Amino acid sequence: MSFTARLTADAALIAQRLDAALADKADQPVIHAMAYAMRGGKRLRGFLVLESARMLGLADARAVSAAAAVEALHAYSLVHDDLPSMDNDDLRRGLPTLHVKWDEATAILAGDALQSLAFELLSDPALGAAEVRIALVAGLARAAGAEGMVLGQALDIAAETATAPLTLADITALQAGKTGALIGFAAEAGAILTEADPGPLRAYAAALGLAFQIADDILDVTGDAAKAGKRLQKDAAAGKATFVSLLGLDGARARALSLANEACAALAPYGPRAEMLKAAARFAVAREM
Amino acid sequence: MSFTARLTADAALIAQRLDAALADKADQPVIHAMAYAMRGGKRLRGFLVLESARMLGLADARAVSAAAAVEALHAYSLVHDDLPSMDNDDLRRGLPTLHVKWDEATAILAGDALQSLAFELLSDPALGAAEVRIALVAGLARAAGAEGMVLGQALDIAAETATAPLTLADITALQAGKTGALIGFAAEAGAILTEADPGPLRAYAAALGLAFQIADDILDVTGDAAKAGKRLQKDAAAGKATFVSLLGLDGARARALSLANEACAALAPYGPRAEMLKAAARFAVAREM
Repeated sequence: MSFTARLTADAALIAQRLDAALADKADQPVIHAMAYAMRGGKRLRGFLVLESARMLGLADARAVSAAAAVEALHAYSLVHDDLPSMDNDDLRRGLPTLHVKWDEATAILAGDALQSLAFELLSDPALGAAEVRIALVAGLARAAGAEGMVLGQALDIAAETATAPLTLADITALQAGKTGALIGFAAEAGAILTEADPGPLRAYAAALGLAFQIADDILDVTGDAAKAGKRLQKDAAAGKATFVSLLGLDGARARALSLANEACAALAPYGPRAEMLKAAARFAVAREM
Repeated sequence: MSFTARLTADAALIAQRLDAALADKADQPVIHAMAYAMRGGKRLRGFLVLESARMLGLADARAVSAAAAVEALHAYSLVHDDLPSMDNDDLRRGLPTLHVKWDEATAILAGDALQSLAFELLSDPALGAAEVRIALVAGLARAAGAEGMVLGQALDIAAETATAPLTLADITALQAGKTGALIGFAAEAGAILTEADPGPLRAYAAALGLAFQIADDILDVTGDAAKAGKRLQKDAAAGKATFVSLLGLDGARARALSLANEACAALAPYGPRAEMLKAAARFAVAREM
């Protein structure tokens, strides 16, 4: 199976699990908004959960609720990041953002409920022993919270009003939180689910997360908004320092490629079983969306 | 020990646990905002966790992280409910609300991170076996999410623009989500922590939650804003239906008292060990804050 076919198949599997999670909930705007927030997207984080588990011998049915949890959490973060008082975006995955389609209150509440849903999904007995599930909860809570994703977003917002532009070290720290923490948890989830050594997947994810973010900055400059499904060139317009503004376009590309190679090298212990995760690292730096 | 002394002692115990949870986190505005959001308050929900566990024979040290989790979650809900696009409140627990003291972005992020922190606290091994902790996670996620607290808040916001005023059944359903779900989880937590039959505590909490909310509506009309630490008479000004507008002041008082008695009766199986929880039910309908 090619990487693209696998990504598509996994996205469908995750969508099915998320649909099932919402299926028995009330017929209310906030529930519809949650479903809207979870549609589309590459579901790369969910793929990382499924594929890291698969590489370590776990059946998809034993991992899919964790993949869905990570995607629910990612969806909440996008909904809140898009709010007028945050990044103020009106387009996401090619459609109006949630606060544009509904209103701010619904967007805040739907995001809040998506975070709760993520933890509810991690309590699914299909994921294995209680020890495994509570380890997933601890890992996701830390990745999501005030030392992970939220901290990264807070630093990003602070950067907009900072008097001095960010340095490369600042941006690396910021991105380690904003996108790195959740990508890291997603890849590590396979090791948690199978109670395997998390070391190699952790190293893979650290390099992958940064490569992914550098590619995002490149895409913001060179990308096609129609393919990306969101507004681009926002960082340059805001005068924000990015990996591209600091390293130049060629320098950023070289750094992203080198990180993708580093990510692949970290998986050496797994030999050919790691092929699909290596393809994901190559995809992360070559993608157009 | 009197109920008031117990409530104060438990509030201090919970504050200590919350302080410890934030102590090792970064020196960032979003972390300071989280601490600010968690200061003060009666901590009645946290007390319900500690006291229900205590009644069933559990030491405080084995329950305090769950009490802190419930208070972190409650704090997040207050921060988000106070936002301009939600209830638009500028005063809470006698101090400026978080978005007034910082800004909306910080308030949204601090609330988000408080929710993550709640689940992180539930993963604390001090709470017991992994089975117990994951049951707490599942219970809190459901109480917080799209069929619990968030649904209640969404219905409350929808009521503001509804063409027909809410009926008693509508308001009861709304409050079962908005305040009832988390109070219910808090009281049930003792049974989860000790793997006891949740039936009596569930019945107690259902009556208590509704009594608490009716008392809140009474307080909104008759209360002293200085004691309550928040703006009052908001519902009447907004023309919103409340238990008081539907039942009258005397009718609402009678209903709250009858529910408090119902709550106490549900604890009959525990005899004198339930005295403190019964006092909490009486307090809930007699409080001035």
